[in-house]
Amino acid sequence: MRNKKQRIAAMCAVLAKNPNKLYSLNYFQEMFSAAKSSISEDAAVIKQAFEDVGIGRIETVAGAHGGIRYIPSMPQAARVLLLKELTEKMTDTSRILPGGYMYIADLFCTPYYVDGMAQIMAEWFVGARADFIVTVETKGIPLAMSVARILNLPLAIARRESKLTDGSVFSINYLSGSSRRLQTMSLSKRMIREGTRALVIDDFIAGGGTVKAICDMLGEFMIEVVGIAAAIVNRYPQKKRISGYRAIFELEELSETKIEISAC
Amino acid sequence: MRNKKQRIAAMCAVLAKNPNKLYSLNYFQEMFSAAKSSISEDAAVIKQAFEDVGIGRIETVAGAHGGIRYIPSMPQAARVLLLKELTEKMTDTSRILPGGYMYIADLFCTPYYVDGMAQIMAEWFVGARADFIVTVETKGIPLAMSVARILNLPLAIARRESKLTDGSVFSINYLSGSSRRLQTMSLSKRMIREGTRALVIDDFIAGGGTVKAICDMLGEFMIEVVGIAAAIVNRYPQKKRISGYRAIFELEELSETKIEISAC
Repeated sequence: MRNKKQRIAAMCAVLAKNPNKLYSLNYFQEMFSAAKSSISEDAAVIKQAFEDVGIGRIETVAGAHGGIRYIPSMPQAARVLLLKELTEKMTDTSRILPGGYMYIADLFCTPYYVDGMAQIMAEWFVGARADFIVTVETKGIPLAMSVARILNLPLAIARRESKLTDGSVFSINYLSGSSRRLQTMSLSKRMIREGTRALVIDDFIAGGGTVKAICDMLGEFMIEVVGIAAAIVNRYPQKKRISGYRAIFELEELSETKIEISAC
Repeated sequence: MRNKKQRIAAMCAVLAKNPNKLYSLNYFQEMFSAAKSSISEDAAVIKQAFEDVGIGRIETVAGAHGGIRYIPSMPQAARVLLLKELTEKMTDTSRILPGGYMYIADLFCTPYYVDGMAQIMAEWFVGARADFIVTVETKGIPLAMSVARILNLPLAIARRESKLTDGSVFSINYLSGSSRRLQTMSLSKRMIREGTRALVIDDFIAGGGTVKAICDMLGEFMIEVVGIAAAIVNRYPQKKRISGYRAIFELEELSETKIEISAC
């Protein structure tokens, strides 16, 4: 590496691409054939730059197994813009579907929106010391995976139908809050470990029945749910089957002619 | 922003977090209250640094709507390490499940592996001028979304069962190559546009029946499939129902006592 500026450039890219991953200073020393003191100086420059622009902080972990990690955050202006844009998109009446539904699958499959919502959620739970993320297929998977990526945690996907490739599974039957239909959810035994801590991420919470079912299932394995978040929570029913969740948006009204949604 | 080094640090983070997204120089001028010439100089430093370390290139697009974008690549050493680690994980015989299956769902839900495999695929198709990525639920979704993220494209998820929240859907019935079972796949009409170009990404190809069904369905809408990739392709059956696909790994043998897999 030719000079300090180029070293900083490459270091920033590595850190930014791998959020919440701890890199030893030694890793960068070898990468750039540079002295430890130089890498420390570079880290200080990066730390200041990231804070000035509001894109996160560099955390230093002391000790033999220490190093630096990048904990991203979203600048206030970017957050405002994202929420405004998503609100406009979601309240577009062409999204209204028959039967009181709305089409939003595209927003949960577009990297800019998915990563933006995931970043907001990741900031809520960065201190929660979760061991893994859980979600239920299908629509929330990209969002949950993006949160997992930002927090550098594995994801476990609960499935509606278990597959042969899941190996042994745990299943739970429950009544979905909205339709009062009997639903099944399965989680591969290999995906979870007793006594760990989970974050539950979903795209949409209506009655909370699905999330409650996940929490109940995790509870059977002494897995503590240390956070629950959805991108959108429906205002109705006001009495949910779960509490303590967080949401980015509240769906206030959805009729055949109107969608009202607001950032929480 | 205090100085040039800090400006470079912040610029790198923004570029690295948003691969294949075009940023006008004006965007950075405003972010840092800096002159255009300074931003151009910074971009040149970053370009050189990324190339030296092998983490990608900075592409300059000329003209009024031009700017710079980051096209990531994986350094050769990182690729070798990733493939070695994944091969070791996948050939672990504790992954063997009854009936000739293997448990690999965890690898497709771990950010480091998912992003690594996605990066390899993204490099294959960075010049393919695709408009969107398509996958079939469930296990391949994080991988497909990661490819979508790296290429900055939207993802369309074909579902096994269509949902009310998908709106109007197109469905296709097909015989799955391996089990000869009748399967259904649906794609929301709102997800696709006639005359566009698609990349098909899946976790596993056995006979190729599922991928063929996607291609057939897309063909009905004059959507050109400009690339097909799977993380793993099964060596058997050797005669697939599709051709022209790429894979990262080939599964050579899977019995009750042995898994053999190799990087392609």
